[in-house]
Amino acid sequence: MQHPENNAEYKGLTVNSGVEQPSIVNPYLKRFRRRHRELSVGEMVEGILKGDVTVLSQAVTLVESVNPDHVGKAQEVIDKCLPYSGRSVRVGISGVPGAGKSTSIDQFGVHVLGEHGGKLAVLAIDPSSERSKGSILGDKTRMEKLAQHPDSFIRPSPTAGSLGGVARKTRETIILCEAAGFDKIFVETVGVGQSETACHSMVDFFLLIQLAGTGDELQGIKRGIMEISDGIVINKCDGENVDKCHLAARNFRNALHFFPKPESGWTPQVMCYSGFYGTGIKEIWDMVYRYVDFVKANGYFDHRRNEQSKYWMYETINEHLRSSFYNSRLIQQRLADAERMVLAGGKTSFAAAGELLDAYFAEMKK
Amino acid sequence: MQHPENNAEYKGLTVNSGVEQPSIVNPYLKRFRRRHRELSVGEMVEGILKGDVTVLSQAVTLVESVNPDHVGKAQEVIDKCLPYSGRSVRVGISGVPGAGKSTSIDQFGVHVLGEHGGKLAVLAIDPSSERSKGSILGDKTRMEKLAQHPDSFIRPSPTAGSLGGVARKTRETIILCEAAGFDKIFVETVGVGQSETACHSMVDFFLLIQLAGTGDELQGIKRGIMEISDGIVINKCDGENVDKCHLAARNFRNALHFFPKPESGWTPQVMCYSGFYGTGIKEIWDMVYRYVDFVKANGYFDHRRNEQSKYWMYETINEHLRSSFYNSRLIQQRLADAERMVLAGGKTSFAAAGELLDAYFAEMKK
Repeated sequence: MQHPENNAEYKGLTVNSGVEQPSIVNPYLKRFRRRHRELSVGEMVEGILKGDVTVLSQAVTLVESVNPDHVGKAQEVIDKCLPYSGRSVRVGISGVPGAGKSTSIDQFGVHVLGEHGGKLAVLAIDPSSERSKGSILGDKTRMEKLAQHPDSFIRPSPTAGSLGGVARKTRETIILCEAAGFDKIFVETVGVGQSETACHSMVDFFLLIQLAGTGDELQGIKRGIMEISDGIVINKCDGENVDKCHLAARNFRNALHFFPKPESGWTPQVMCYSGFYGTGIKEIWDMVYRYVDFVKANGYFDHRRNEQSKYWMYETINEHLRSSFYNSRLIQQRLADAERMVLAGGKTSFAAAGELLDAYFAEMKK
Repeated sequence: MQHPENNAEYKGLTVNSGVEQPSIVNPYLKRFRRRHRELSVGEMVEGILKGDVTVLSQAVTLVESVNPDHVGKAQEVIDKCLPYSGRSVRVGISGVPGAGKSTSIDQFGVHVLGEHGGKLAVLAIDPSSERSKGSILGDKTRMEKLAQHPDSFIRPSPTAGSLGGVARKTRETIILCEAAGFDKIFVETVGVGQSETACHSMVDFFLLIQLAGTGDELQGIKRGIMEISDGIVINKCDGENVDKCHLAARNFRNALHFFPKPESGWTPQVMCYSGFYGTGIKEIWDMVYRYVDFVKANGYFDHRRNEQSKYWMYETINEHLRSSFYNSRLIQQRLADAERMVLAGGKTSFAAAGELLDAYFAEMKK
């Protein structure tokens, strides 16, 4: 520090410049800062293969991370786990908010673990969870019994923004869970938008939970969802609701006739149950396992898994090609103008598209 | 010609080397070779705007050409015609082979020209026409009355291979026809695959021709097609078939309840008719014009056209991005291996996709 007193004019007067104050934090504490030591790829894979749920959780967190270091490491872990994956029955469970998915999954999970043994992982796909702060599976207390079960692993939806990203992370998490010995995987998804298609593309059986409404339940059938369901189950079939549920079931069965027979050769089943009272659960899961036996026998089980692998490869490529185009600065600057031009009738859609593409590819070459 | 006799040894002997024989073709014929002089862009546009069907035909041929010179010229013609397009009612007509599309279109066309006047262009989208040598609309004699009508223009499907290409050419041909004063456009398409979606994306009203089968007609309903239909008409409602047709109509009406209400606010209608006897035709076209009035009043007409323009711009971009990737030599060499690796479980779908994308983008930069 420079003090005017140090000036020659003030000869005989000196001011010490002082010493640096010691940190108020104990410097020796440093080594304790990282409370969980970060596991190496090898340790992580070893832990997963041993079925260590704590290590599995860390690996899933790694998969969900957007940190570039983590992405590479996650890929290594997944690659090493891949040979041990695939040996499970994957069931997708969908339904609109309020259909009672959480209660049902709680009952379903306890039932299959009790009846068939093994280990159950419950995952989720919900691209909206970033906004809603992970409502889907976010509250483990909504799956009270399953959350306390020693053979269960519950993981909320990754909050990665785009559906493609969320779906990818969930699919990679399935690989890790299977490598950790989970032979039953539930993938929960909300009954809106394209998350069902994504979920359907990674499970062996797709179960749709419906409610018997006030007569207009059929109005709400979305074509895409019924078409891809291997089973439709109507919840809250209890008390005064029983007749309504059976009527709804009949309507659903009729509606299913309007769709072409699924490629699997399996006729989708419609059943009633009560998630709250736990009735009808056994019938549903007997049906699911009957389906699994059926498609394993006719070869569709492997066929579907292969198709899903190819689907995700091509889907990833196509999504990436699109995002590379639409997220490029050049296109972002020009797209709105091009669209305006087309709507105003100044250019055909094809001419406008051609100009944007030429500009994009020229930019890529630079 | 060199003859040994010209050699010095043969002094005193010479052989003339002969004269070139005149061509057996009159050289002055050259100027008559090109029998139709190729029109300039300006002449072509002028001819189209005058409603000259011969010029229109030439312009459509230009649009369908894959010759690079023609592509550029076609684009100029389209651009110049664009301001005069849009003023028509575009109706898509679909149905499986055997539903009686040609006979019906013949009847429909004669009816609307008689009842509403104006000019009618009949186009087609059939990506399979290259293989089947253009069966769809290929035989104008199947539209006997319309083919002879002075105010009609019938054009078979372009045979350009991919659906995207065929659809693009048809959409551009619509622009030319509209500029030539055709205020009614029919776009015929076969009831299979995605050509319906393509057709639906360029028309104002989508009409689905169905048959009353032997009781299993509902089995054959493809979800995508009923969903996008603004009207469903059941052909061959004559003789002994009348009761069956009315039963089928009732079934279709019920089936329509399973789908969400269309964005247009219009409730799709189901009607019976006989293309052969020409009964029920008026009712169908009164319905179509009722629809047009309805959606023009509620603004959906313009909204749908705008959405279609945007759709085709994005569709063109996405298709081009994909084809640039999948048709690149590098990817064609590596894709099969990547797929095999994924199916064998040696790599995740995402890792394989990532490697292909990296290689592609690196190649692009070169």
